[in-house]
Amino acid sequence: MSTVTAPENPEDDPRVKAVFDDIRDTRGTDYINNVWRYLAFDPRLLEEVWRDVRDVLAKPSLLDPMTKEMIYLAVSITNACEYCVHSHTMAAKAKGMSDAQHGELLRIVSQAGRTNHLLNGMQIPVDPVFDTEV
Amino acid sequence: MSTVTAPENPEDDPRVKAVFDDIRDTRGTDYINNVWRYLAFDPRLLEEVWRDVRDVLAKPSLLDPMTKEMIYLAVSITNACEYCVHSHTMAAKAKGMSDAQHGELLRIVSQAGRTNHLLNGMQIPVDPVFDTEV
Amino acid sequence: MSTVTAPENPEDDPRVKAVFDDIRDTRGTDYINNVWRYLAFDPRLLEEVWRDVRDVLAKPSLLDPMTKEMIYLAVSITNACEYCVHSHTMAAKAKGMSDAQHGELLRIVSQAGRTNHLLNGMQIPVDPVFDTEV
Amino acid sequence: MSTVTAPENPEDDPRVKAVFDDIRDTRGTDYINNVWRYLAFDPRLLEEVWRDVRDVLAKPSLLDPMTKEMIYLAVSITNACEYCVHSHTMAAKAKGMSDAQHGELLRIVSQAGRTNHLLNGMQIPVDPVFDTEV
Amino acid sequence: MSTVTAPENPEDDPRVKAVFDDIRDTRGTDYINNVWRYLAFDPRLLEEVWRDVRDVLAKPSLLDPMTKEMIYLAVSITNACEYCVHSHTMAAKAKGMSDAQHGELLRIVSQAGRTNHLLNGMQIPVDPVFDTEV
Amino acid sequence: MSTVTAPENPEDDPRVKAVFDDIRDTRGTDYINNVWRYLAFDPRLLEEVWRDVRDVLAKPSLLDPMTKEMIYLAVSITNACEYCVHSHTMAAKAKGMSDAQHGELLRIVSQAGRTNHLLNGMQIPVDPVFDTEV
Repeated sequence: MSTVTAPENPEDDPRVKAVFDDIRDTRGTDYINNVWRYLAFDPRLLEEVWRDVRDVLAKPSLLDPMTKEMIYLAVSITNACEYCVHSHTMAAKAKGMSDAQHGELLRIVSQAGRTNHLLNGMQIPVDPVFDTEV
Repeated sequence: MSTVTAPENPEDDPRVKAVFDDIRDTRGTDYINNVWRYLAFDPRLLEEVWRDVRDVLAKPSLLDPMTKEMIYLAVSITNACEYCVHSHTMAAKAKGMSDAQHGELLRIVSQAGRTNHLLNGMQIPVDPVFDTEV
Repeated sequence: MSTVTAPENPEDDPRVKAVFDDIRDTRGTDYINNVWRYLAFDPRLLEEVWRDVRDVLAKPSLLDPMTKEMIYLAVSITNACEYCVHSHTMAAKAKGMSDAQHGELLRIVSQAGRTNHLLNGMQIPVDPVFDTEV
Repeated sequence: MSTVTAPENPEDDPRVKAVFDDIRDTRGTDYINNVWRYLAFDPRLLEEVWRDVRDVLAKPSLLDPMTKEMIYLAVSITNACEYCVHSHTMAAKAKGMSDAQHGELLRIVSQAGRTNHLLNGMQIPVDPVFDTEV
Repeated sequence: MSTVTAPENPEDDPRVKAVFDDIRDTRGTDYINNVWRYLAFDPRLLEEVWRDVRDVLAKPSLLDPMTKEMIYLAVSITNACEYCVHSHTMAAKAKGMSDAQHGELLRIVSQAGRTNHLLNGMQIPVDPVFDTEV
Repeated sequence: MSTVTAPENPEDDPRVKAVFDDIRDTRGTDYINNVWRYLAFDPRLLEEVWRDVRDVLAKPSLLDPMTKEMIYLAVSITNACEYCVHSHTMAAKAKGMSDAQHGELLRIVSQAGRTNHLLNGMQIPVDPVFDTEV
């Protein structure tokens, strides 16, 4: 059950079609997953979100594609976004993350969650040596 | 202002001294940062947290040290843990993260935060093709 | 699957009946949605939560009803509360939110999520000019 | 630096004075801490929040006062509310929490944070035996 | 103490100068607040974030400027982003939010936080009547 | 739908069998719930998580078993971890939490969520008297 309604024939709208074409082209697959099909209810939002996700994850950059997906997934797990956890686990695997690396990601993310809670409970002062502006 | 009190001479306690020695040895530096100095108020908690942080971040594994710190940092940013953000930014830089890579990390983390909010607002169904158990 | 059990005949309890009558009266509908039916497992909690939700959302105030529901929905999305996202999307629509305004709400909420993550990662000082007590 | 301004002579307003008198009476101390002094900017909000905090934490109930403060503190740590972490650590100590119990609380909270992240990353099905409505 | 360093003469970089000029022009003030001065460490990130914040908050749209700032602020409070809470409280006030409306916003946000926690604890089924796709 | 695959015959792996034996022994039941069955995909992660959850929740300590489960549950609710909310509600009940105490827990957790949001919105200074290091 969703809070927005996916249009039945989204590609009747040329703005939606242009985005879907770019998704297929960028990914080399005909499959359009749900986030884009539902976002088609608001073509402008669809255009903006796809443009930025593509720029961050699919354009060559200083970090390799698998690392970028793992960082994206770590944030999605922490924010408890069910859809995002599934889609970015899938994407990280598609870009080379092995089951063992997935296990290690979960180990890092959960350990970070542990010390984040610990430190938020202790409220200790940040070490002055951490200051990058000195 | 913290909620626990750091002992004045923590290494008078041999359990604390053993951990601090291992921290110095593992990191190759004499500096003990605040999280460990304050955790010394509870030697058992200090031992457990150091053991696990060291295992996750300082032991050879399937991911390289800089990637691990960047994932740890991404979670810490998402959890709004001020101390953790500072300490793991520092650690990631110590393990090779350049300013430009730091900028890219912030770009990925904030973009993930954006789509996490968007998807939590849309509540759309997870695509059946994402099912790893099929 | 829930963690509490909704009573089968909740209105046998006069405290529950009084709340349900007030819900029907305030909303002008006979439908009692699940949150109230399940909260009936603890009549005092039911009374308190209904009293406060009604005061905040259904009483005339300085903000119009649709704006109040949109703010409530924005918080619910951010907290990843599935039930709340559904019920307050519905309520905002019942109070006049169009699909296009819903799209704009999602755009604002997700953009805020993005800069919140960015700023939590940067940890920059708050501008002194923001001080309301000067 | 706060986002609201604490009134200079809050007790000139009889509604504020009545709340402050009740705080002093309930707690057996003359000290009014900042949350109430700042909330005085909006007397109605002050009245509601004090009424409910007092009811939850200061009235006899099924759980003892220290346990209630520890649960309240656990939530405040998880929500990264700096002020709340300080005030409820103080309150839990005032109601008997020892330093060793504080250490144990931090151990439980951080371990829960760890498995919460782990499970949000794994997205596994809830066991049918957990269903309370069967 | 921040994790990135604000350039000393940011407007020596023409890309930064173009953004700062647009900020001054859009807002009708010479003051550039810290988020933009620090973001200048990564001109591309500065350009993208300013472009999107301006589009969401400063362009005419279906919602009035004060409502948009209040929704943005509600998310920022929920995400515990200190800088964002300060800057968007200021912006909402600049766009007309009175102290009394600020009090009402805080009342709605905190009440939503309460029912979000309650519902996340109860895990009750979403009412089928909330389904927008039926 | 999960992001990892539970092995079909997990106890063929002696490391997994050892953990499962210890779970059965510690809990006095033959039932192995899903979190352990799925974690078996990574025996080392399974070993570490079980070791630490057992130490925190099943070993005698300064807090009684029901209180520990209630604190664990409070954190899990706040983090919106669906599986954890179900499993720790069940565990707290198994250790003596009555329905009325469950209702009180939900009342405390939701009230804390409310004041956490309120204080994150107000950003008021922490009272100097809360300083434990003075």
